[in-house]
Amino acid sequence: MLENKIKRTELSELGEFELIDLLTKNIKLKHKSSVKGVGDDAAVINYGNKQTLITNDLLIEGVHFDLTYVPLKHLGYKAAVVNFSDIIAMNGIPRQLIIGIGVSNRFSVEALEEFYSGISLACENYNVDIVGGDTVSSVSGLFISVTVIGEAKKDDIVYRDTAKKGDLIFVSGDLGAAYMGLLLLEREKQTFKADPNMQPDLGGYDYILGRQLKPEVRKDILKLLNGIAVKPTSMIDISDGLASEILHICKDSKLGCNIYEEKLPIDVTTAALAQEFEIDPTTVALNGGEDYELLFTIKQDDYDKIKDITGISVIGNLTEKNEGVNLISRSGASVPIIAQGWDAFLKKR
Amino acid sequence: MLENKIKRTELSELGEFELIDLLTKNIKLKHKSSVKGVGDDAAVINYGNKQTLITNDLLIEGVHFDLTYVPLKHLGYKAAVVNFSDIIAMNGIPRQLIIGIGVSNRFSVEALEEFYSGISLACENYNVDIVGGDTVSSVSGLFISVTVIGEAKKDDIVYRDTAKKGDLIFVSGDLGAAYMGLLLLEREKQTFKADPNMQPDLGGYDYILGRQLKPEVRKDILKLLNGIAVKPTSMIDISDGLASEILHICKDSKLGCNIYEEKLPIDVTTAALAQEFEIDPTTVALNGGEDYELLFTIKQDDYDKIKDITGISVIGNLTEKNEGVNLISRSGASVPIIAQGWDAFLKKR
Repeated sequence: MLENKIKRTELSELGEFELIDLLTKNIKLKHKSSVKGVGDDAAVINYGNKQTLITNDLLIEGVHFDLTYVPLKHLGYKAAVVNFSDIIAMNGIPRQLIIGIGVSNRFSVEALEEFYSGISLACENYNVDIVGGDTVSSVSGLFISVTVIGEAKKDDIVYRDTAKKGDLIFVSGDLGAAYMGLLLLEREKQTFKADPNMQPDLGGYDYILGRQLKPEVRKDILKLLNGIAVKPTSMIDISDGLASEILHICKDSKLGCNIYEEKLPIDVTTAALAQEFEIDPTTVALNGGEDYELLFTIKQDDYDKIKDITGISVIGNLTEKNEGVNLISRSGASVPIIAQGWDAFLKKR
Repeated sequence: MLENKIKRTELSELGEFELIDLLTKNIKLKHKSSVKGVGDDAAVINYGNKQTLITNDLLIEGVHFDLTYVPLKHLGYKAAVVNFSDIIAMNGIPRQLIIGIGVSNRFSVEALEEFYSGISLACENYNVDIVGGDTVSSVSGLFISVTVIGEAKKDDIVYRDTAKKGDLIFVSGDLGAAYMGLLLLEREKQTFKADPNMQPDLGGYDYILGRQLKPEVRKDILKLLNGIAVKPTSMIDISDGLASEILHICKDSKLGCNIYEEKLPIDVTTAALAQEFEIDPTTVALNGGEDYELLFTIKQDDYDKIKDITGISVIGNLTEKNEGVNLISRSGASVPIIAQGWDAFLKKR
């Protein structure tokens, strides 16, 4: 999409510091806790008596994204949001972001501005300050490192290892759409490769494509829970797929669980597209990943308070560790859940 | 060096989480402020009423390091130390580290363990906790993102933009050795390429090679300054070369300066090797970079207190902005200083 732009400034026309000045000139600090942002050896942050949350994610071209179909602005947006998701999944509030990028000469200054505009938009939408970063060159490809700092009161933080036997397992939103969006974009890329005159046929898939290209974090769900005074007993965001995340909660909390196939929330377009691709929608919901929904557990006693909240689904319950981590199929069969969401050393995603 | 090892476990033999478990199994948290480390969506840190400092650096294979002559353990050590340097250059104390790595199948599990052992050693030496990270695959090459979190009392922090006209400019240690170490390693690599039976001739260059391969941060200098109650008026670490760093201080503090060529601290082996390479030692001291020494300014009134401290050199003074940023040569000529330390989009370092 960037080939259509008229202006292309080579990175070599600017020095490192001119480039950083250009990319960071519109950054304004909004939080009192952001004492010092871009422009010194380190950012300075002051949380008084709250606790500081820190998370970091790397995104590598050819592994985590394909620029043939991911616009740079969307990529910047998503790179920021997936890190906000980690802070919010601890029941914290993201406050500051540090962005590190490695770029080759293939990218123009305008391309980087486009990427930065996506980061900025995400920071604006989630009320986060950009406080620093590092910009380096790469031999080839684009490498992104995002660090996000957040805050929380000590007693508000929700960990992964604090679920209890008997707790109910909930998931927000629906699952599998982001993965189907990826498959759809991959298919159109192959079609385009075979016949470059062919126009991509992506009509009717706005929801699915949006889930892949512009994910959002479920801050709203935590606000609703907070409003009814329900604190999850454990929580994690779904980045690698429901199967992988429930295994984390069970392993860390030393428990087993039953997840009911019939309870898995799957959007109708996701299910229809999965069938078109001849994939079981349940597999997509379990292992697709990149949903950025929240997987959380609550005490059974809180069920009455929570049951009228829309946009969340109860999908199972926690059991003794020796009962294993199981999917109870529609027919009632119990199948052990194995993580298949991430295996980047075996195959590209 | 790793080819000699007997054991090679392919990354594909382990899943992501097994790999993370393996690499992080020896991590022990030492700081009370490290509330939660590796193993949740985010690290949790609590600084009470101190300020939090955060810095991030990216290191990319083929740009920032060459594995033909940099042992992975040294690389890990350096990747950590260069970030500690950023915290210490703010007069803060590094406390936590988050490590993100992108690796291709070219690397074995043992190679990553070697890299991690360097990170761990640096963290042990500088009393820093490893609290999290991200491990992803790359299409080719090794990508490293290090985030370091530190603390400081509000009034202790030293920024870049707070120097005053008339302040004296100091530098710790000596300059240019790390760059000559790089040139030496590059030369031996070329010799080896031309004749693989040739053994590298690196005798007598221990100091210079150590400066390139295993840099340390000048915590000792800050301790000395603290002991005599001298607080720098501004400070920065020398990563991109003295020229680049003094330009930062002058630009940010809205001042000019005179740096005296004859005052630049250059080790004799650095000067001798520069002459062998037919490079002006002054150029190496100004633009070589990766010294990780401290460049700082002090009030003239503090000169009497500081003048007996060994291991630091006064190299110039700050002037009005309109006088420019100048090098006063041995002959007395004034030459504008231009940053040449970093231009990665034009050439590889």
